Amino acid sequence: MKGNVIVGQSGGPTAAINSSLAGVYRTAIDRGAPKVYGMLHGIEGLLNEQYIDLSEHIETDLDVELLKRTPAAYLGSCRYKLPEIHENIESYEKIFEILDKLNIECFIYIGGNDSMDTIKKLSDYAIIKGYPTKFVGVPKTIDNDLALTDHTPGYGSAAKYIGTSTKEIIQDSSALVYSKGLVTIVEIMGRNAGWLTGAAALSAGEDCEGPDLIYLPEVAFDIEDFLSRVKKLLEKKPFVIAAVSEGIRLEDGRYVCELTDGVDFVDAFGHKQLTGTANYLARRLSQEIGCKTRSIELSSLQRAASHLASRIDILEAFQVGGAAVKAADEGDTGEMVILKRISDDPYQCTTELRNVHKVSNVEKTVPREWINKNGTYVTEEFISYVRPLIQGDVSPVMVDGIPRYLYHKKK
Amino acid sequence: MKGNVIVGQSGGPTAAINSSLAGVYRTAIDRGAPKVYGMLHGIEGLLNEQYIDLSEHIETDLDVELLKRTPAAYLGSCRYKLPEIHENIESYEKIFEILDKLNIECFIYIGGNDSMDTIKKLSDYAIIKGYPTKFVGVPKTIDNDLALTDHTPGYGSAAKYIGTSTKEIIQDSSALVYSKGLVTIVEIMGRNAGWLTGAAALSAGEDCEGPDLIYLPEVAFDIEDFLSRVKKLLEKKPFVIAAVSEGIRLEDGRYVCELTDGVDFVDAFGHKQLTGTANYLARRLSQEIGCKTRSIELSSLQRAASHLASRIDILEAFQVGGAAVKAADEGDTGEMVILKRISDDPYQCTTELRNVHKVSNVEKTVPREWINKNGTYVTEEFISYVRPLIQGDVSPVMVDGIPRYLYHKKK
Repeated sequence: MKGNVIVGQSGGPTAAINSSLAGVYRTAIDRGAPKVYGMLHGIEGLLNEQYIDLSEHIETDLDVELLKRTPAAYLGSCRYKLPEIHENIESYEKIFEILDKLNIECFIYIGGNDSMDTIKKLSDYAIIKGYPTKFVGVPKTIDNDLALTDHTPGYGSAAKYIGTSTKEIIQDSSALVYSKGLVTIVEIMGRNAGWLTGAAALSAGEDCEGPDLIYLPEVAFDIEDFLSRVKKLLEKKPFVIAAVSEGIRLEDGRYVCELTDGVDFVDAFGHKQLTGTANYLARRLSQEIGCKTRSIELSSLQRAASHLASRIDILEAFQVGGAAVKAADEGDTGEMVILKRISDDPYQCTTELRNVHKVSNVEKTVPREWINKNGTYVTEEFISYVRPLIQGDVSPVMVDGIPRYLYHKKK
Repeated sequence: MKGNVIVGQSGGPTAAINSSLAGVYRTAIDRGAPKVYGMLHGIEGLLNEQYIDLSEHIETDLDVELLKRTPAAYLGSCRYKLPEIHENIESYEKIFEILDKLNIECFIYIGGNDSMDTIKKLSDYAIIKGYPTKFVGVPKTIDNDLALTDHTPGYGSAAKYIGTSTKEIIQDSSALVYSKGLVTIVEIMGRNAGWLTGAAALSAGEDCEGPDLIYLPEVAFDIEDFLSRVKKLLEKKPFVIAAVSEGIRLEDGRYVCELTDGVDFVDAFGHKQLTGTANYLARRLSQEIGCKTRSIELSSLQRAASHLASRIDILEAFQVGGAAVKAADEGDTGEMVILKRISDDPYQCTTELRNVHKVSNVEKTVPREWINKNGTYVTEEFISYVRPLIQGDVSPVMVDGIPRYLYHKKK
């Protein structure tokens, strides 16, 4: 590799996205790239000429290991959608001017659907204009809702955190006694896809029954049915655990969290905050059954908990980053690296390339047949799919009792 | 030891209370106790003759290790306050009848202030009536608000979880970009004592600035001052992190969480739920500054996260349980085991006994001089106190990617 590499991160942070960055960096160096640049805050930052020379930050092998264990997005993220080429050709000219100045041979972008759209547009533009730069995408999202790939780096670690935290919540609940019973509602991320919420089922084992109910956004939510199920469960056991997606909706399409009186929380941008589902359900239960209730939102911790990352996930994220550089170096462009599962048991998985033009904006949801008939739990097929992705641990590098991250030494 | 031992757990679950149970069990067996019984759901369960023979559940050394890593309360907890002797002598007669039937020589109770009150009353009654059973208390609480002891088992693990999770939240925030800035409010347990909330400062290190603001319940909260501080911070940096105790109150004594319109959440028992502080502050900020806000409640995960337990905490909890059995076996009664710190650096700590009559119901709060003048952060003294308590890790025993717990094999 004679030219330089530039890499950016985009979309919501995950526990594994920096491991992909580490994979990009390591492979670029190994293949002889003179420089590896990092865009600060993705393509948006690049348009403002904000980038760093990564080798000034990643100085040793230990730094690479630290980066793999650092959550969120080391380079900073953005949610910028590149305009169509005909809408704003100036942006494209600006970007290619910068890439040319930096002598960029490979442009790697780590992110979700929007990021793959960026790869598509830039690679199209390069082909049209005859620029030699190669553009390859690296998938990431905790939501696991990207099409074409078996699963997405970032999902396994989030699933492991959700399974473990749900188990801890169940254990906590089992210790308590309330005369009319205790119901705990755990709210998990995922607006339209239930991959994360279904991971609550991973808590089950011979030492733990798992949650009693799991509600995914793929199936319409029936509040009366939910209340009656909880009532029946409380007749048999002292505590009930329900895992619900933040995005569950009624048959008529309204989000459950929209039903909350008085807290129709719209932020300064007019965006409705998708939060409060568990809180609403807990209040309804308290009013109608009189039981003790608790609502627990797993919040952004589920995407940032690198201390509980899955080893498989961190290694695959690294591998996918490396595969992107290799592909670009070998002349591929306009491609996304995907994970292709060969088998569940023993788990085997490899990387391949897919044309980014095939990456649609359709979110991959949980197949209906992986949810039980009543829509109240995931099936064994779902668990067999997820289980391999949470295997193994990545010991955090602990300093003074707290995990250490790689930070920006030079600004 | 010729007679048997009985042990119970009471109050809120922690990540370390089962390590104390393991310490009681191991020491009792080592000292030759023929049987070690466990009350199910504390003294309340004992009154209903609900107890188990622990040796039927803890069969191997591995089971002891698993128990040390199992969060919540293996025996189940209760919140039962024993009546005064003159109010209900029948309860006492019933308890001592059961203890006599089980040939109990040592009665160990693991819990907070209420549990020490139980130890006090039972040991008084035994002395008055001439019963030979010895009663010793083992302190536990994540809140660290028990007097007489330097700190309380359970606190160190919760502090480690809070420091780590706060750091992950800071890292997540640092990756995001919002035009008017992002403010994240982290709500932490502690109604009257700020020990847990102050632990958010442990996130700071050379790789992390730590939270910008920390508000403990020991100091009256000034909302206007808070809003203006956040506003000023947002002029200098793109994201602000504030850690707040669930129990912060205004100068006039009202809880901040009581200010939330429309969600005056009172449960079926008429108890006001102390929740929503972060949510209220996030809404106020969004309305008044127009910035993006997030509220994150660390919830009961902070007391149940055994996967991130502090090694020091788990070992001390074990040690304190063992010291209780030793004391009772040597004839002490009406005592609580305490932790006495000998030095911070190197950290050295030992156990001693204190008469339970000296355990008042006063909650030990954070000294005012360990909070800065403005009431917006903890001081170095606070951090030097907490830091040794979060050192070292206890690897969870992972089975299929999820931590394994000791469970009740025989019912």
